[in-house]
Amino acid sequence: MSALAFTKMHGLGNDFVVFDGVRQAVALSTDQLRLLADRHFGVGCDQILLVEPPADPAAALFRYRIFNADGGEVEQCGNGARCFARFVREQGLTDAREIPVETLGGPLVLRVEADEQVTVDMGRPVLEPARIPFEADLEAPEYRLEVGDTALTIGAVSMGNPHAVTFVDDVAHAPVATLGPAIEAHPRFPRRVNAGFAAVRDRGHLDLRVYERGAGETLACGSGAAAAMVVARLQGRVDARVRVSLPGGVLVLSWDGSAESPVRLTGPATTVFNGRIDL
Amino acid sequence: MSALAFTKMHGLGNDFVVFDGVRQAVALSTDQLRLLADRHFGVGCDQILLVEPPADPAAALFRYRIFNADGGEVEQCGNGARCFARFVREQGLTDAREIPVETLGGPLVLRVEADEQVTVDMGRPVLEPARIPFEADLEAPEYRLEVGDTALTIGAVSMGNPHAVTFVDDVAHAPVATLGPAIEAHPRFPRRVNAGFAAVRDRGHLDLRVYERGAGETLACGSGAAAAMVVARLQGRVDARVRVSLPGGVLVLSWDGSAESPVRLTGPATTVFNGRIDL
Repeated sequence: MSALAFTKMHGLGNDFVVFDGVRQAVALSTDQLRLLADRHFGVGCDQILLVEPPADPAAALFRYRIFNADGGEVEQCGNGARCFARFVREQGLTDAREIPVETLGGPLVLRVEADEQVTVDMGRPVLEPARIPFEADLEAPEYRLEVGDTALTIGAVSMGNPHAVTFVDDVAHAPVATLGPAIEAHPRFPRRVNAGFAAVRDRGHLDLRVYERGAGETLACGSGAAAAMVVARLQGRVDARVRVSLPGGVLVLSWDGSAESPVRLTGPATTVFNGRIDL
Repeated sequence: MSALAFTKMHGLGNDFVVFDGVRQAVALSTDQLRLLADRHFGVGCDQILLVEPPADPAAALFRYRIFNADGGEVEQCGNGARCFARFVREQGLTDAREIPVETLGGPLVLRVEADEQVTVDMGRPVLEPARIPFEADLEAPEYRLEVGDTALTIGAVSMGNPHAVTFVDDVAHAPVATLGPAIEAHPRFPRRVNAGFAAVRDRGHLDLRVYERGAGETLACGSGAAAAMVVARLQGRVDARVRVSLPGGVLVLSWDGSAESPVRLTGPATTVFNGRIDL
């Protein structure tokens, strides 16, 4: 038993325990991952990030892996990707600003900007209803959705996971807690859906709250911000570069409006402290 | 700005960020205390413990201070006292096993046992109704309490804070979430009350769940365990030394049954990790 070094980080309050598996041997059991994530008995985090050498050093600088609080490995997390990019530079593992990485969800290139914010390629939006998946006859920038006695107008898009976006006048008073779970479980979304409530401040600025599938309302859902930006742009409400204010802070989303183009997300990553733990 | 060393600890899941203010200068603002306690943006804990040199070195080895997650300083916490005692020995600040300390609530002596569990003097139980405070004509080992349509039999005691203890057959199915808040706010407890639900396994073992005043159900309420033991002993249900199984783990309570004698609590304190943070 020797102490493992780790770093606690967050991206707009979505928080991570990050391990350098390049310079130290890190092999974590499911029980150890669960303990690490536990907020009273362990370090406490939403997810654990593990940085490893790449399988193909010609194509990537690192491999990085993401584990949920239940110990299961997952594919992608935009907030985690930003923390990863900040971590490898702060720890002196690289001084590159363009960082190609291998992930379980495929290769990614992360870019660390001059102000140390990090830009992540969120992929192309999927708008075809069957692929979201969402039950609708034709692809459209907006759809009518009956939720109980309420008729909503939504946009629907997948950013790797399905999103329904509703525009409201004021996110502070949006019915996130009541309509969120009802939209999430709506039968027209056969794999359920993340429910976003967005308000347009101007053509370059949205406010957003997201009720996440299986998690409830969260501080800063990156794919939700991308989905809200895409829907707002398809509906002609915003321009190609949009600030999105979430409860945890601000992200910047860029998309040129073409279904062939990826959405790019830029946001902060913050180091909280460094620690050592015996597991 | 220089990094402060800290240790994350817990006593049965009640968790603390502990600072050595003897060997490093620690002056924390309310905003810094709140950030430290924040579980997503900071380290995350129920309370912050600060170990300082004593005002009177002839009478105490240390002074120790406790701050809540809102930054306010508070008097006492049994789980925190155990972590404090473990901390000063692990950090090499003392090798004493009897550790006299100054606290905002007055002097305390903590004893670290051979197995590194820590014994805390919880003080004498207060049984006189007016001093609990509880509205009753005469002091008695049990009282009838009408809660809505339910007639409960409770014991009432103050261990520095007021407790109502109800015996049930099985704590797993006790109505903690429903009756807890109703007992807490009962008008016969003018300063509200902590509501314990206890079951007797045998004369040396209780099960207990506690709905804490202002906090809801918690993992391991030390004063609640003391209160349950006192009420059980007054009602003739247990002997002078009792294991109390709480959701977070096991405490051992000792009391000889005399209102002149203090209740002693023995339990574990666990170090999770050591860290350094820039504030």
